[in-house]
Amino acid sequence: MSENRGVVYIGKGKVEVQSIDYPKMHDPRGKKIEHGVILKVLSTNICGSDQHMVRGRTTAQEGLVLGHEITGEVIELGRDVERFALGDVVSVPFNVACGRCRSCKEQHTGVCLTVNPARAGGAYGYVDMGDWVGGQAKYVLVPYADFNLLKLPDREQALEKIKDLTCLSDILPTGFHGAVTAGVGPGSTVYVAGAGPVGMAAAASARLLGAAVVIVGDMNEARIKHAAQQGFEVVDLSKDTPLHEQIADILGEPEVDCAIDAVGFEARGHGHEGAQHEAPATVLNALMQVTRVAGKIGVPGLYVTEDPGAVDQAAKMGSLSIRLGLGWAKSHAFQTGQAPVMKYNRQLMQAILWDRIPIAKIVGVEVISLEDAPRGYSEFDSGAPKKFVIDPHFSFSKP
Amino acid sequence: MSENRGVVYIGKGKVEVQSIDYPKMHDPRGKKIEHGVILKVLSTNICGSDQHMVRGRTTAQEGLVLGHEITGEVIELGRDVERFALGDVVSVPFNVACGRCRSCKEQHTGVCLTVNPARAGGAYGYVDMGDWVGGQAKYVLVPYADFNLLKLPDREQALEKIKDLTCLSDILPTGFHGAVTAGVGPGSTVYVAGAGPVGMAAAASARLLGAAVVIVGDMNEARIKHAAQQGFEVVDLSKDTPLHEQIADILGEPEVDCAIDAVGFEARGHGHEGAQHEAPATVLNALMQVTRVAGKIGVPGLYVTEDPGAVDQAAKMGSLSIRLGLGWAKSHAFQTGQAPVMKYNRQLMQAILWDRIPIAKIVGVEVISLEDAPRGYSEFDSGAPKKFVIDPHFSFSKP
Amino acid sequence: MSENRGVVYIGKGKVEVQSIDYPKMHDPRGKKIEHGVILKVLSTNICGSDQHMVRGRTTAQEGLVLGHEITGEVIELGRDVERFALGDVVSVPFNVACGRCRSCKEQHTGVCLTVNPARAGGAYGYVDMGDWVGGQAKYVLVPYADFNLLKLPDREQALEKIKDLTCLSDILPTGFHGAVTAGVGPGSTVYVAGAGPVGMAAAASARLLGAAVVIVGDMNEARIKHAAQQGFEVVDLSKDTPLHEQIADILGEPEVDCAIDAVGFEARGHGHEGAQHEAPATVLNALMQVTRVAGKIGVPGLYVTEDPGAVDQAAKMGSLSIRLGLGWAKSHAFQTGQAPVMKYNRQLMQAILWDRIPIAKIVGVEVISLEDAPRGYSEFDSGAPKKFVIDPHFSFSKP
Amino acid sequence: MSENRGVVYIGKGKVEVQSIDYPKMHDPRGKKIEHGVILKVLSTNICGSDQHMVRGRTTAQEGLVLGHEITGEVIELGRDVERFALGDVVSVPFNVACGRCRSCKEQHTGVCLTVNPARAGGAYGYVDMGDWVGGQAKYVLVPYADFNLLKLPDREQALEKIKDLTCLSDILPTGFHGAVTAGVGPGSTVYVAGAGPVGMAAAASARLLGAAVVIVGDMNEARIKHAAQQGFEVVDLSKDTPLHEQIADILGEPEVDCAIDAVGFEARGHGHEGAQHEAPATVLNALMQVTRVAGKIGVPGLYVTEDPGAVDQAAKMGSLSIRLGLGWAKSHAFQTGQAPVMKYNRQLMQAILWDRIPIAKIVGVEVISLEDAPRGYSEFDSGAPKKFVIDPHFSFSKP
Repeated sequence: MSENRGVVYIGKGKVEVQSIDYPKMHDPRGKKIEHGVILKVLSTNICGSDQHMVRGRTTAQEGLVLGHEITGEVIELGRDVERFALGDVVSVPFNVACGRCRSCKEQHTGVCLTVNPARAGGAYGYVDMGDWVGGQAKYVLVPYADFNLLKLPDREQALEKIKDLTCLSDILPTGFHGAVTAGVGPGSTVYVAGAGPVGMAAAASARLLGAAVVIVGDMNEARIKHAAQQGFEVVDLSKDTPLHEQIADILGEPEVDCAIDAVGFEARGHGHEGAQHEAPATVLNALMQVTRVAGKIGVPGLYVTEDPGAVDQAAKMGSLSIRLGLGWAKSHAFQTGQAPVMKYNRQLMQAILWDRIPIAKIVGVEVISLEDAPRGYSEFDSGAPKKFVIDPHFSFSKP
Repeated sequence: MSENRGVVYIGKGKVEVQSIDYPKMHDPRGKKIEHGVILKVLSTNICGSDQHMVRGRTTAQEGLVLGHEITGEVIELGRDVERFALGDVVSVPFNVACGRCRSCKEQHTGVCLTVNPARAGGAYGYVDMGDWVGGQAKYVLVPYADFNLLKLPDREQALEKIKDLTCLSDILPTGFHGAVTAGVGPGSTVYVAGAGPVGMAAAASARLLGAAVVIVGDMNEARIKHAAQQGFEVVDLSKDTPLHEQIADILGEPEVDCAIDAVGFEARGHGHEGAQHEAPATVLNALMQVTRVAGKIGVPGLYVTEDPGAVDQAAKMGSLSIRLGLGWAKSHAFQTGQAPVMKYNRQLMQAILWDRIPIAKIVGVEVISLEDAPRGYSEFDSGAPKKFVIDPHFSFSKP
Repeated sequence: MSENRGVVYIGKGKVEVQSIDYPKMHDPRGKKIEHGVILKVLSTNICGSDQHMVRGRTTAQEGLVLGHEITGEVIELGRDVERFALGDVVSVPFNVACGRCRSCKEQHTGVCLTVNPARAGGAYGYVDMGDWVGGQAKYVLVPYADFNLLKLPDREQALEKIKDLTCLSDILPTGFHGAVTAGVGPGSTVYVAGAGPVGMAAAASARLLGAAVVIVGDMNEARIKHAAQQGFEVVDLSKDTPLHEQIADILGEPEVDCAIDAVGFEARGHGHEGAQHEAPATVLNALMQVTRVAGKIGVPGLYVTEDPGAVDQAAKMGSLSIRLGLGWAKSHAFQTGQAPVMKYNRQLMQAILWDRIPIAKIVGVEVISLEDAPRGYSEFDSGAPKKFVIDPHFSFSKP
Repeated sequence: MSENRGVVYIGKGKVEVQSIDYPKMHDPRGKKIEHGVILKVLSTNICGSDQHMVRGRTTAQEGLVLGHEITGEVIELGRDVERFALGDVVSVPFNVACGRCRSCKEQHTGVCLTVNPARAGGAYGYVDMGDWVGGQAKYVLVPYADFNLLKLPDREQALEKIKDLTCLSDILPTGFHGAVTAGVGPGSTVYVAGAGPVGMAAAASARLLGAAVVIVGDMNEARIKHAAQQGFEVVDLSKDTPLHEQIADILGEPEVDCAIDAVGFEARGHGHEGAQHEAPATVLNALMQVTRVAGKIGVPGLYVTEDPGAVDQAAKMGSLSIRLGLGWAKSHAFQTGQAPVMKYNRQLMQAILWDRIPIAKIVGVEVISLEDAPRGYSEFDSGAPKKFVIDPHFSFSKP
């Protein structure tokens, strides 16, 4: 049995690569499972939602092995696995799902009813999501493998396009879910709040869905520049020119058809002044202002039920002061929640394999080694327009 | 030319029946129109949203002629009207819509772009909705008649079923929109917050849509009793037993598939204590708690952009403290806004004509004369489980 | 181990109850499976599609154990089964499905890709559907039990409503699928071709979906009478009055919003003359005539790829002379194929448990013993307005 | 008043440019209308469905002024037109629609109930479509202008992109409707039968909708070559290699997710032999073979109710021998009928204006003068991979 190592949260602001247990075929409650596989991790990405934990903005406990964006090779099969073989290269949705409950049968794999005793919805290496061990590691267990895994059709092709395909486990379907639930279609005008990886993936998805024009807003200069280089229109939220005026400068009108919140609860205010402090309802309130009547707002950005680091008591409970009257007057619709990755990943894989979406380039993939993960966390946290992809076995990058 | 009389808002808490101008074929900006008809009003209903104005909870000006729920007979035709003839009996959607703008072409008649210079969406006799004269009157103008009017196929049948058909102009489609956007379908379990007419219409609609069970909640004893008499399950929100426990007592589980907010911004808290004071986010927060994962929440209840009578500064701007983190964790969807009546009224008319939905009985229709309107306002405001329908010409009731 | 007995097809026009093997935990290819359960069959129905086989209108082989409509009690559990326990009472969708392939993940369980080596889609006891042993028997194997089974919440309640709940395995979801794919919703006018059990289930479903009026057509006098007794409008296709005129007599116009083909390939012509001989495209051509523009036609009625008993060479290959030009001019949509039962059965169970759909009464359930099955086949084949339900263990009927 | 000239059908195989009446503000029944505009035609295209008429495959009468693909400038306004002004540049959907009937209100403008006394659905210059005068002319009347016209936002930009924008009146929305109703979305594999302009527009639309790969099939060498040059995969139906094998060579599997029939009733057989003669059901039968289970088939290709030139008696009535049993076994869905252009044209205009779809290049636009129209008809009929666009006033091309 090989030695395993993984990225471990060791306290506010700190992660460390440590030796960890090699995965066992049992669930987090210690029950033996026959439906799982053990993967040799080929690539695993650092996610913005990992940052929420590492910044101490959740109730994550120290010692948590992080990582829910996983692509791997099957190296051990549970007895009941029928559809996969040793050596298969697979993409793993970040949602752990059983494939047997009402939610899973209705394609709502993001809120599986059985994999997390505490609430609906499971994930690897994530607070409140069922205690499944994270995959920023050399090896990881995936339960309900026949249901959860997406087979990449060809190993060689997979390794060749790994920087794109690694985005299938979370970031691309998450952005795509935002775009789909915002109602993006051919000819849409779209505003994406946030130019981090989710925002960029939402923008890329909107383009794939046929949007006429996609505008990305942020207050981080490097990210704005990166978004513009990818061919998107941009607005700078640290400027004092109001968002709707910046949009009007681009479109000739101050509203868009569809809006996506790719920021979530750690939002800051707009404008030179506003940008100095957190204002968790800023994004949603701004989106109601700039979305046209009968428009939809997709909210892939994370909002939490508890936020120990929040600016006020209400926000600590996940309550935000939302100008709902405005949205109501405009007949807006809102879709919240984690993306059900499985609903989209096969199609998005096809789009990648046929060269329809250069997602690695758009989100700024940078490959690092497992031991380098702490640097990745730190650089990402500082706002670099990058998506860090860990190659734990040097499968496709050089040591 | 006949004399016209109508119900006029004359100040906080007061309405009066006054002589008003006979309708002219021009729009509120004074422009001559050729696409309108003048109706002899056969029935016109008092709506809960009229009450918001009369209670001084909006910026409505004194002198406003009220009434947006209108059924009538065509007595004068503009030159451009092709599809109607004198004597036709018609139902009028409360939304004024042009039939020619992007919103109307996409079936979003609730947010027509042209009939209201101030914002999207028009209505008769309503604050901020384009200054179209209200229809709690003997005669009223309906613009864009070919687009707006729904012809009732047979005059005699129409008068026979007028107490049901009068609900097609607003209350039934509004409740139905709530149910549809909450995702109600065959076998759904449904919770409707509010047992006023919108709530009862939503409950009736949920039943028509095939819901397995519909639970209606209120804190008004008479309304709860009325809802139970109509065959719905009920919960009493003035009790200290939490809502989810009351639901569990009925369903065996504390959550429903679909939830409808038929209360809006004038909500009160739950429980014996809570019921004493307004708490505008109560309903939405409660619905997130009792709606299952991946469920939808329909919000036909009105939320406003400005509320002079609100409990706090935020609510005066239409901002509410919403526990969005909870909804997000459960992947909830929300649909807000006024019902686009035209999307539903023809089908609902069919359901009424074929005796599939006894809506008059369910909402508690009581017919009154025009001169009696002030009593109707007052009794309705006191929480009677009734829907007051005015018969201005004694077309189907006795003087 | 108990003795098993089942209904066996022994040649054109003949079925016999024989001793058959007790189910083993292996698939039809002889592979051991751990995901299955063995059920004691509580009820199992005779289906019109069984009749196609027994009449020799398919390539079914002699010796086939029939039966795909199964409700049962779990008496043996495979090792991989997690969500069921001994004693659970369950409804079994007629489609055998793996829950792990693309079709299953997309809710298309009627065309599962893995349970039938010959083509997509599996079923119990059915020609060309993967050789799964039928369930008109005392005991039967259900594979992929965690995915396939629907748990009935309470055993006592289940037995009390068993005549309704037994319809969940096929007939009700099949009729419902027809209604849904025909676009039936509140206020729809609906025509259902065929007053056999599928037609009656489609009619009942249309009513549950809120249809204003449902018209059922047949040429069998007893079935027409039964349909009328259930409160549906009826037309008699053996009359020489054309269908569209009979519809106009009911609706005032010769077209309906939605149409459902609950007949399939063994259709006869219309009118006194037409009814004398088979005319396999009659129903579809008639539906295009009587369905309004932009309407949808649901086709749950079976059309086959090979029909040894067809009237002509083309029909033997499943080719029919369809007046597509007519449908095209009216912008019709068509949905064909077997119902994906799992997409609907939970919701329909809820509708039954809350007394929203008296399906047993509507389809004319008559309970018989297993040994009496041949009589059931024969009487059903003669056109009785009944749905025969076999109670193999006298679980709810008397010997 | 200017002189008018237009393209006139003068008998099988022949069109001629003749002097025709200058448009009057009345409908084809001679009734004065106030809702129309007269357009100076800026561009008007020759359509494949014009060819059906000119080839004598319809019941079109001699003397018909042809042309239903119109872009123009408003030069005269009916009194009731509110939303347009003289000088506006507009795209005209080929469907004539009233904007006031049930079909129009439900976005089914292809089957408007009022503009054609003979059946649902109107068009300019087209047999059986309501006798509206065609627009392959210098001037043309457009009724219900507020509803029918799409304003191009800027005159200069419109003329600059006119070769793309001229495709908005029919060819692009028609292809797009085919793709949408075939269920094309991100990652789809798509087969388009027919590389004429509708097929190429469908292929372009599929790409805009995010398809992973689009395969176009034809038996015309020049069209196949053109399709390949536009970046689509191609199959050659005149080859004896079966279609599904050619598809498998491209995809690695013999089926696609979505299929589009862009050929219609004048189809020929497949293979070296088959290509020699008409076989009107060939395309639909082939599509059922190559479309995966639960797939959808969009049928924008025209099927007629009467075809005087058909190969057999059944086809003369629009009846085709369709292998429905095959489609049924695969749970296929079919959507037929003319595209409701208005549902799509605004969005597609946006896609053109923001350079997301180079439709002129993809369909092979070639601009000709009005007097040159007969050459355009003849060259198009011979199978040139071109879309002929007439510039009647030399507005953007040189004489």
